[in-house]
Amino acid sequence: MPANVICKACAGEWPATDHLIADLDMMTAYLFDDQFFPGWTVLVLKRHATELFHLTTDERGQLIEDVSRVATALAMAFEPVKINYELLGNQLSHIHWHIIPRLAGDPAPREAVWTVKHEPKRLPPDELHERISLLRTHLKK
Amino acid sequence: MPANVICKACAGEWPATDHLIADLDMMTAYLFDDQFFPGWTVLVLKRHATELFHLTTDERGQLIEDVSRVATALAMAFEPVKINYELLGNQLSHIHWHIIPRLAGDPAPREAVWTVKHEPKRLPPDELHERISLLRTHLKK
Repeated sequence: MPANVICKACAGEWPATDHLIADLDMMTAYLFDDQFFPGWTVLVLKRHATELFHLTTDERGQLIEDVSRVATALAMAFEPVKINYELLGNQLSHIHWHIIPRLAGDPAPREAVWTVKHEPKRLPPDELHERISLLRTHLKK
Repeated sequence: MPANVICKACAGEWPATDHLIADLDMMTAYLFDDQFFPGWTVLVLKRHATELFHLTTDERGQLIEDVSRVATALAMAFEPVKINYELLGNQLSHIHWHIIPRLAGDPAPREAVWTVKHEPKRLPPDELHERISLLRTHLKK
């Protein structure tokens, strides 16, 4: 990243703090803004790095434990058919994972979420807090 | 997976053996059939499992090392702007990763590959072998 470009993850501009689920070892978990796919969670690395090979072996081990721990909580909370794990960085290169439970009744169960055109679903505050609480409860188990 | 459904990864039906790049610790690396995005590699788990939390902590650590090692080789071979790492399983639940270098000149650098409509690019045998050899060379470094 050029020195004159501010990383919006490092600057605290994204994700929104009211979407915080939990502070994990290497990453911080947030409920994704768009809940069209219920439970979609993003995990943001606590320091700036853009590729897995920029981390140490120990850090990669901790990172994949954070990913697996969140996936476990999502599995308990939503009983998905499958979970998608995606580390892309096409729009924001700072390492962040999309962990997306694909539930029974998914509109396109064989396709990646990015191909599914839909109106973004932003939860009203009470539902947002309820969903975050549900995931926090399962993360503690 | 129901007992009467055969996993095509376990059955050896996919990926094609002539696309083999390397036998790694937890996974086997193959060049993806469609090389529209040059260097797209798939890593297939050597045993049947469908979610990260079905593996042990040690296995997850080895798995992410395999992923990082292949990404390093792809970075050396193709000098991508960014690498995408995706564990989806929507069509084949057996754990397999798509590791996709996104090069300068990518037709949709800000989007996931799944949204990019294109004719699949199958390499003729000489180019296929050349690309596999290139990646093997970088994996040995």
